[in-house]
Amino acid sequence: MTTIELRSDNAAGVAPEIIAAVAAANTGSVIAYGADPVTAQLEALVRSVFEHPAARVFPVTSGTAANALSLSSMCPPWGAVLCHDTAHILNSEAAATSMLGGGVLMRGVAGTDFRMHPDTLAAAFAATRWGDNHHSQPRVLSFTQPTDMGTIYSVAEIAALTAAARERGLRAHLDGARLANAIVALGCSPADVTWRAGVDVVSLGATKNGALSAEAIVCFDDAVADELVYRTKRAGHVTSKMRFQSAQLIAYLTDDLWLGLASVANQRMARLAAGLGDLGVGFVNRPDVNMLFAEVADEVATELERSGLLFYRIRPGVIRLVTSWQTTDDDVDRALASFAAALG
Amino acid sequence: MTTIELRSDNAAGVAPEIIAAVAAANTGSVIAYGADPVTAQLEALVRSVFEHPAARVFPVTSGTAANALSLSSMCPPWGAVLCHDTAHILNSEAAATSMLGGGVLMRGVAGTDFRMHPDTLAAAFAATRWGDNHHSQPRVLSFTQPTDMGTIYSVAEIAALTAAARERGLRAHLDGARLANAIVALGCSPADVTWRAGVDVVSLGATKNGALSAEAIVCFDDAVADELVYRTKRAGHVTSKMRFQSAQLIAYLTDDLWLGLASVANQRMARLAAGLGDLGVGFVNRPDVNMLFAEVADEVATELERSGLLFYRIRPGVIRLVTSWQTTDDDVDRALASFAAALG
Amino acid sequence: MTTIELRSDNAAGVAPEIIAAVAAANTGSVIAYGADPVTAQLEALVRSVFEHPAARVFPVTSGTAANALSLSSMCPPWGAVLCHDTAHILNSEAAATSMLGGGVLMRGVAGTDFRMHPDTLAAAFAATRWGDNHHSQPRVLSFTQPTDMGTIYSVAEIAALTAAARERGLRAHLDGARLANAIVALGCSPADVTWRAGVDVVSLGATKNGALSAEAIVCFDDAVADELVYRTKRAGHVTSKMRFQSAQLIAYLTDDLWLGLASVANQRMARLAAGLGDLGVGFVNRPDVNMLFAEVADEVATELERSGLLFYRIRPGVIRLVTSWQTTDDDVDRALASFAAALG
Amino acid sequence: MTTIELRSDNAAGVAPEIIAAVAAANTGSVIAYGADPVTAQLEALVRSVFEHPAARVFPVTSGTAANALSLSSMCPPWGAVLCHDTAHILNSEAAATSMLGGGVLMRGVAGTDFRMHPDTLAAAFAATRWGDNHHSQPRVLSFTQPTDMGTIYSVAEIAALTAAARERGLRAHLDGARLANAIVALGCSPADVTWRAGVDVVSLGATKNGALSAEAIVCFDDAVADELVYRTKRAGHVTSKMRFQSAQLIAYLTDDLWLGLASVANQRMARLAAGLGDLGVGFVNRPDVNMLFAEVADEVATELERSGLLFYRIRPGVIRLVTSWQTTDDDVDRALASFAAALG
Repeated sequence: MTTIELRSDNAAGVAPEIIAAVAAANTGSVIAYGADPVTAQLEALVRSVFEHPAARVFPVTSGTAANALSLSSMCPPWGAVLCHDTAHILNSEAAATSMLGGGVLMRGVAGTDFRMHPDTLAAAFAATRWGDNHHSQPRVLSFTQPTDMGTIYSVAEIAALTAAARERGLRAHLDGARLANAIVALGCSPADVTWRAGVDVVSLGATKNGALSAEAIVCFDDAVADELVYRTKRAGHVTSKMRFQSAQLIAYLTDDLWLGLASVANQRMARLAAGLGDLGVGFVNRPDVNMLFAEVADEVATELERSGLLFYRIRPGVIRLVTSWQTTDDDVDRALASFAAALG
Repeated sequence: MTTIELRSDNAAGVAPEIIAAVAAANTGSVIAYGADPVTAQLEALVRSVFEHPAARVFPVTSGTAANALSLSSMCPPWGAVLCHDTAHILNSEAAATSMLGGGVLMRGVAGTDFRMHPDTLAAAFAATRWGDNHHSQPRVLSFTQPTDMGTIYSVAEIAALTAAARERGLRAHLDGARLANAIVALGCSPADVTWRAGVDVVSLGATKNGALSAEAIVCFDDAVADELVYRTKRAGHVTSKMRFQSAQLIAYLTDDLWLGLASVANQRMARLAAGLGDLGVGFVNRPDVNMLFAEVADEVATELERSGLLFYRIRPGVIRLVTSWQTTDDDVDRALASFAAALG
Repeated sequence: MTTIELRSDNAAGVAPEIIAAVAAANTGSVIAYGADPVTAQLEALVRSVFEHPAARVFPVTSGTAANALSLSSMCPPWGAVLCHDTAHILNSEAAATSMLGGGVLMRGVAGTDFRMHPDTLAAAFAATRWGDNHHSQPRVLSFTQPTDMGTIYSVAEIAALTAAARERGLRAHLDGARLANAIVALGCSPADVTWRAGVDVVSLGATKNGALSAEAIVCFDDAVADELVYRTKRAGHVTSKMRFQSAQLIAYLTDDLWLGLASVANQRMARLAAGLGDLGVGFVNRPDVNMLFAEVADEVATELERSGLLFYRIRPGVIRLVTSWQTTDDDVDRALASFAAALG
Repeated sequence: MTTIELRSDNAAGVAPEIIAAVAAANTGSVIAYGADPVTAQLEALVRSVFEHPAARVFPVTSGTAANALSLSSMCPPWGAVLCHDTAHILNSEAAATSMLGGGVLMRGVAGTDFRMHPDTLAAAFAATRWGDNHHSQPRVLSFTQPTDMGTIYSVAEIAALTAAARERGLRAHLDGARLANAIVALGCSPADVTWRAGVDVVSLGATKNGALSAEAIVCFDDAVADELVYRTKRAGHVTSKMRFQSAQLIAYLTDDLWLGLASVANQRMARLAAGLGDLGVGFVNRPDVNMLFAEVADEVATELERSGLLFYRIRPGVIRLVTSWQTTDDDVDRALASFAAALG
C-alpha cells in the first residue's frame, strides 16, 4: 500500500539544494565552533534578507533549542514569558525554557483563532501583580507565527501586541518554526513581520521546510546576542563543524528557496482544504498556511488510515493534516479520493 | 601559500562514506524525533558493535551535549563529578554540566600523564567529607579517553579506577570524543574499554573523526537512559529529522569505518612525532593517539606559522599539533620540512 | 483609630509559649546545623504526634522553602506537579519549585470549592501524554490543606486522590501552611490526614499559627528525606543555630498547643461568618477554617477601611478576611459592628 | 565533666539584648514579608551604620543564603566567581551558588595567609580566556573577611583587589560571616572595609556573633538589589514575620553591640593564643580575629578531648579553636591549663 504523508512537515526529507550545499561545504579544513567563513557568510546573508545591518545569527539544531535559548537569554529567572494558551513553547517543549532559564515561568494568554489579541493581552497584564515578588514578572511576549494550529497573525496584529508589551517593559520573541509559510501567506518581507513589527529575537525554522538539521536564532538585540554567545555553548548548542549548519541555512535563504518551498506546502494545503470543503468536511482552524485541523468522525479516520493516509488524531473527532514542500498535487488528489471514499 | 591543518581534528571535513550515507537517508518521509527506522537500526548496530544487548543510544549534535546530558543524568544536583584536572568537561565546556545538572560540582583529581591514578583517586576520596551536607558528594567518575592531552588509559587502568569508584557508590562515565583513536591505539574492542571495564555511559564522538554533526550517548545503564529520554528533549537535543544523525552514525560504525579513520589519524601522528623526535623536539605528552603538545620556542612557532603550518599555541613554549583522518603523509612530510627549516 | 487585623494570620504575633521556649533554649553551647539535642527531641516528638516511627523532620524558616524543597526532592526536573488551579505553590511562590527543581512544571487541575476532585484529576491524567518526552510527566500530586480559599478536603477525599495518583506513579505532597486549622476543623488526627491518607511529605506550617520563624518539612518517605538532607543545605535552609527553630516547633506541637491556637482562629471565623451571614453578606467560599472571601461592594469596602478594619481586596466586589490565634471575640464583634454600619 | 566550647562560634547562644529585642517586637500585628515598620527601621539603621544613604538590606536566615543569593544576583549563569582557594563559598556551601545561579562556576585563586593577593589575582586573570564561550567568564570577586582560616585583609588590600577586579568588569562581594570581628581587629569603620574599599554587596553575619537566626545582605548596588527582591522570595528566603529577623539585626547594630560582642571574642582568642604561644604551640594561621588553627599532635588532641575541651580536628596534627562572645576569661584559662597538662 502506498502511503501519503500528512502527519508532519518534520517527516519530509531534505531539499536537493540543501543536500547539495552540505556536500559543497565539505572542502578543505576550516576552524571550528562558528569562526569559519561559511558562518560569517551566513550572518551577512541574514542581515541582507532581514534588512537589518546588525542582526546576529546563531545556528542551532532544533527548534526547542532556538526557542529555549532565545527566551532564557531574554528573560530573568524570576520573569514570565507570556504566549498563547496553545503555544508550542508552553505545550510541547517539556519546560525547556524553564529549565534553561532557571525557573522562568511560561504563562498562557487566551485568544480566539489560537492567537493573542490586544484585549486578552491587556487582561493578562491586568491580572499581573507588577512588582510583587510573590509572582513571576512578565518580561517577554512570545508569538508562534504561524500558530501551532495553522493560523497566522497579520503584521499589524504583531505590531500592536509588541507595542503594548513594550510599554510594560517586555521584549518580544517570535517562534518561527514555520516562519517561511507565514511570510508567503502574508506576502510581506521578513523584516516586516519581525523587527519592523517590534520583534527582538526570532527562532527561524528551516528543518520542517527542507533543511537537514538546521535552525537559527536571528537576534536584533545586541544585549540578548551577547548572552546567546555563552548560553548556546554551555547548552551544547555550538556545533564544532558549524559550517555544515551554516551551509544549509545559506542555501535555504538564497534565491528565496525558503519561500519557494513554503509556497509549495501552502498551495498543497489550499488545494486540500478546498477539496475537503467541497466534501463538506468541517475545519477547526482557518488553514492559513500548511496545517489543517479537520472535523472527522473517528470511524472515518480509521477508514482513512486503512487507505494509507498518514495523519495524527488530535482528539476524538479531530485529525491534523500537514503538507510540506515535498507534498505533490497527486498526493493531495489521492488524499481527497480517500476522503471521498471514506465519507462516501 | 598552502596551509597544513594541524589545529584540530574538528577542522577536518566529512568522510565520503558519511556524506553518502546522509544523502542516501534522504528518501521518502519518516516519522520524526527518533522514532524512525534508521535510528532503530542504529541502536541495533550499537548493541552489536559494543556487544551489549541492552545498550541504548541517543544521537546528539555536540560533544558538550553528550557529556553534560550524560553526567546530569547520572549525578544528583548535590553530587560531584570527579575527573582529571585537565579534563575537557572541567576546563572547556563552560560549566555545561553544572548548568544542566542543577549545580553539579566538577572536581579535579590530580595525576601524572594527564590521567587519574588509583592513588590520586584514593586521595580525592580521602579528602571527601562523605555524608556531610556542606559538601557536594562524589557520585560520578568521568574519564577522558583519550585525554585532552593525547594520552590514553589502559583497559586495566580504567577497570581499576571504576572498581574503586563503584565501592564508593559512584557510576562511571567515559568522555570518548576521540574514542576510536583510543581503541585503535589500545587494540582492544569497544566493549573492553567501556562496559567490561566498568563504564556505565559513553559519550561517543564522531564529529572529530569524520562525521558531519553527530555524536552519540551510548548508555549501558537503564535508569540513566530513562532520564536521558526526557533530558535530551528538554535541552533541545532531540533533532526532529534524527534519521540524518543516525545515518551518519551507522556509516561511522559500519565495517569499522570509525576505526579506519582513527587509524589514519594515529599513524600520521606517529609519523609526525617520529620526525619531530629526530629533529630533537621535546614533547609534553606521550602522543598515544593523534595529539601532540610539543616544546617549541615562540620564535620557532612564529616561523612555523609563516610557513603555513596551522596549530595552536597553548602557552609560551608549547604548541599543540593534531592530526585527523584527513591528514596525509605528504602533509606530515611538509610539516616536518617546515620544522626542520624553522629550527635550522 | 484602633484597627482590627483581618488581613492575614501572618500579621499576628508569636504565642507566649513559643517565645518562652526560644528563651529557654538559650542555655549553654550546642553543636550547630541540626546535630543538637533539641532538634533530636523535635524529631522524636514529630514521630509521636504523627504516629509514624520513621518520620523525619527538617525545620526551615518559610513556607515557600518547605514547599519548594519538598517538591523538588519528590519530582525529577522533567516532571510535573499537579495541584489545584488556586494553589499557593502555583500562584504565590514565584515559581520557586521550578527554580529549585531545575525546571519542574506546575500544572493546575480544576475543581469546584477550590479543591481537586476525582473526576478533575482523572481529566488531568487523561490529558497527559504519558511517556512522551515533549511533555513534562506528572510525578507529584500536591494538596493545599486547607486550600488558599479557606476550604478543606475531607480525609476520604485526600485518600481517594492519593490512591488515584499512586496508580499513575505519583507521590503526594500536602502544603499544610495552615494544617492545624484543617485538623481542628476535621476533628481527625495528624496521621489520618497525612500518611494514613497516602501523603508522603508534609509542609507543616507554624508561623501563621503562632511561631516566630519556623516551618517544618515532615517526611514519611526515606528516599525523599535523603534528598532533603542535601537540598536544604544548598538552598541555604539549614540554620546554624537550629535549636531555636526546633524549640519553637517543640513548643508548638507540645500539649496540642498548635491545635488550641488554630481552634481559636477557627472559632473566631465561625463567629464572624455567622454574623456576616445574618447581615446578608454573600460568601465566595465555605469558611471551613479561618479564612473568608466575602462579597462586599467596593464602596462598602472603603467604608470598612475607614472604620479601621484591615483586610485585603481580592478583586472588585470581593474582600478577604482572616482570623488568627490572636483575634479576640471583641475584635469580631467590633468588625461586625463596622459591617453593620457600612452596609447600613 | 565540664566542657569548654571552642568548636565554633555557631555553637554559642544568643546575646541577651537580642533575645530581649525579639520579645519586644512581639506587639500587635504588622504586615508580613518585610513591609513592616521594624524592617524599615532596620534599613535606616544600616544606612547610618554603613554611612551609605542608598544601601538596601535583605534579612535572611543563613550565611549560605546570604552568600549564594548575593552572588547569583551579581553573576550571570555563564560567569565565574573568583575567591580564595580556602573560601567558605567554594568549600563548605555544597555548590549553593552554582545551584541558585544556574551553573555559576566558583574558581579558586591562590594566595599565602589564606588571602588573595594582587599577583595571584593577576595570575588568575592571565589564565582566563576572556570572551571565549568555552569558558565561564569571571564576573565577581568574593572576599571572605575574615578568612575561613582566621586571617584578615587590610582595607588597602581589599581596595587594591577590587580596583584590579573592576578594571576587568568584575563586581566585588564580601562574605562577612564574621565581619564584626574583622572590623574590630582593623579598627576601621564598616564603610571603610566595604563600599569605600570597592565592595558592592556584603553578606553581613550576625548569627555567629550573638543573633538567633538572622543574617543580612547589605547591598550598595541598586541593580543587584532589584534582582535580590525577586531572588530572595523564590528561594524561600523572605520570612513572613520578618520583623523578628529585623529586630535581631537592629539590636545587633545598635550602640555597637555587634562590635562589642566581637571584641570579646577577639580578646579571648588573643589571650588563648598568647598562652598557647607561651606553651610553645605552633600556629597555622596568624589569629587575627577569633579563630586559631594550632599544630597539636594527635595524642595531645585526644588528651585535650578527654579534659573536656571541645574543638575540631582539621587534619592530622592540626586542630581548630574558635572563641565567641560567650567565651569567658575563665574558659580560656582552663583551656590553657588543659593544654599545659596535655603537653606536659
